Amino acid sequence: MDHEAFFRRQLDRLRAEGNYRVFAELERHAGDFPRATLLNARDHGAQSDTREVTIWCSNDYLGMGQNPSVLAAMHEAIDRLGAGAGGTRNISGTSSQHVLLEQELARLHGKEAGLLFGSGYMSNWATLGTIAARVPGCIVLSDAGNHASMIEGIRHSRAERQIFAHNDPRDLERRLDDLPPDAPKFVVFESVYSMDGDIAPIAELCDVAERHDAMTYLDEVHAVGLYGPHGAGIAARDGVADRITIIEGTLAKGFGIVGGYIAGSAAMCDYVRSFASGYIFTTAPPPALTAGAIASIRALRDADDLRALHQLRVSQVRRALEREGVPHLDNPSHIVPVIVGDPVATRMMSERLLSRHGIYVQPINYPTVPRGSERLRLTPTPLHSEADVAHLASAVGEEWASFKLQRSA
Amino acid sequence: MDHEAFFRRQLDRLRAEGNYRVFAELERHAGDFPRATLLNARDHGAQSDTREVTIWCSNDYLGMGQNPSVLAAMHEAIDRLGAGAGGTRNISGTSSQHVLLEQELARLHGKEAGLLFGSGYMSNWATLGTIAARVPGCIVLSDAGNHASMIEGIRHSRAERQIFAHNDPRDLERRLDDLPPDAPKFVVFESVYSMDGDIAPIAELCDVAERHDAMTYLDEVHAVGLYGPHGAGIAARDGVADRITIIEGTLAKGFGIVGGYIAGSAAMCDYVRSFASGYIFTTAPPPALTAGAIASIRALRDADDLRALHQLRVSQVRRALEREGVPHLDNPSHIVPVIVGDPVATRMMSERLLSRHGIYVQPINYPTVPRGSERLRLTPTPLHSEADVAHLASAVGEEWASFKLQRSA
Repeated sequence: MDHEAFFRRQLDRLRAEGNYRVFAELERHAGDFPRATLLNARDHGAQSDTREVTIWCSNDYLGMGQNPSVLAAMHEAIDRLGAGAGGTRNISGTSSQHVLLEQELARLHGKEAGLLFGSGYMSNWATLGTIAARVPGCIVLSDAGNHASMIEGIRHSRAERQIFAHNDPRDLERRLDDLPPDAPKFVVFESVYSMDGDIAPIAELCDVAERHDAMTYLDEVHAVGLYGPHGAGIAARDGVADRITIIEGTLAKGFGIVGGYIAGSAAMCDYVRSFASGYIFTTAPPPALTAGAIASIRALRDADDLRALHQLRVSQVRRALEREGVPHLDNPSHIVPVIVGDPVATRMMSERLLSRHGIYVQPINYPTVPRGSERLRLTPTPLHSEADVAHLASAVGEEWASFKLQRSA
Repeated sequence: MDHEAFFRRQLDRLRAEGNYRVFAELERHAGDFPRATLLNARDHGAQSDTREVTIWCSNDYLGMGQNPSVLAAMHEAIDRLGAGAGGTRNISGTSSQHVLLEQELARLHGKEAGLLFGSGYMSNWATLGTIAARVPGCIVLSDAGNHASMIEGIRHSRAERQIFAHNDPRDLERRLDDLPPDAPKFVVFESVYSMDGDIAPIAELCDVAERHDAMTYLDEVHAVGLYGPHGAGIAARDGVADRITIIEGTLAKGFGIVGGYIAGSAAMCDYVRSFASGYIFTTAPPPALTAGAIASIRALRDADDLRALHQLRVSQVRRALEREGVPHLDNPSHIVPVIVGDPVATRMMSERLLSRHGIYVQPINYPTVPRGSERLRLTPTPLHSEADVAHLASAVGEEWASFKLQRSA
């Protein structure tokens, strides 16, 4: 078999669909977020090799990746402990920074314990893959909108699985009613959904799960740092964190670094720690990252003003887009999806915003969103100024008109 | 179902087997590797809260986690680019450091392209899981000794799979002979095996694979940085890197940081980049890690003296253990396994070395090695002194005698 020809054919097909991706090579400017220099600007429609841009699609939602206390903690850890951890958590790879971070995560979520992974993808995949596989007869009920990492983890477990309608407690209830009462059940969902920005009815889902004695798993990666008391997320904001068996989060978005984690009972975390292949057989995160994460979580504990400013900028972006007649998905979160609905048009719009207006918004296409719902996904941060918001809205409005896309009423 | 009781029962079972793990909380001393302070010394058999130790089980094989040029590159990247990458590689997460590192990895292995992952676990899992799943009718031939991450990736793909006898080209050949000639085949193995330290007959495995038109996948995580010209690994040392379809490596061991990668043809890397869920849906590694990795790879390009010193220390450890009558697995690598053969005895030996001699060697037990082959896995580095070697050998010899374990002739 000519595997090279196979790979090339598949890539050609992606190109023909308009779904081939050329990564934007961005130099963020520490201390000047959301400004950056795009180094491969010609690949993204610009007339010059490089282009100064304002980033409008980062998941560093609060700009903590540039926060001085975070950077100082990382520098200090590098000087004191070195670059890598030097081994798996079990074989020489655990430092005080790992232990402290897991305690900090437990405290953040009001749980007994926390468990750190190298990425949010891995925390979802390994935790779901381990628990659903190892709890005998476990049946997983998974929200239709769940992230790829959760889907892959559930798939990996080979547990029986049902997909319930997105954010629909009634559909979940119907499905649970039909299952054997004594079968172990595991209800898996997110709080803030990344691409539509909608938020789960967590309390109602917990009501249903509790009536059926089901464990619950809540992915809060797009919420931690941003919502709730101390930035503990939507479940904490809604006062239902204690009803969730496992809260999963990330250190890569609101907290500005990288890594994933779970928080829950001491026995549950210890169980995943002891049995999850993806936890056991991987090098521990570098101490600098864990030190930075501790600093970031602590800085955001008392950052209600920053969270309020974030929400203000989000609402300003929405109102400004509405004044321009640019439709966007209405949702109660900080994610502002502007649906274009075609991969080629979305890419052209993105390139136009970049080349003409110095606005970088990556087009979002399949498989990240369903075909036909290709979009620009705007993520305002508290570090965007009101002038940035005005510039964004007028630029998107102008290009929306020039592409003759449907305007809102 | 009482899931808490289930988790606790499973943990109790681990404890009863002697396989429950308490992580050693180690503060490495940057600039003074392999010295460290053990912070939870009482958990590991010491009579004091903390214990100064010499680490003898790190996978930071060359001490690059403390290398000044690596640390300087990390500091500089933090100051210039910030903490996290801020997004997936596709959505605002790519910086020049990611692009340069992938070029450096391609150059290291003499391949057209490289592709960076957050961990070696993920590079194995995602690459094998994607290619074996997506190449229609692909049949995987997997070495019996392959790492958990490779096994899980192959399992995830749901491709047809055969296990061939460890490091046995003849068994591989027999199995390939029995397969349909036109079926796509994928031969998957490692160069240096982590726990036994043996090395694959790469050229002979390539001979067999080529006769059957099979793709080859070689995990070099315990070899890169340590072996071959410029530290490019065993395949490069043996002059057969160009015969391997995909070389996989890590930045966490010889290179001293964290992360995984593959290197191969441009089309193959582009294919995995474009289709692997574990690559697409995860935040890019922080620029500081990629900058550190570039510095480490470059520093090790011309470090033949360091590699020679490493091998010298390894042979000194072997000879010194032999003088003490302590048997160890004979192998041609830098990994010195001392088999104790029982989880409880291995743990007691490890605790005795720690409390009496200030030597930290984590006991290795199931599931990392098969039950009955529990061991101490010694990893000398060029930063261990000859005095360290002498101290290690006399300490292991003394405890070996006190445990009345079988001595070598």
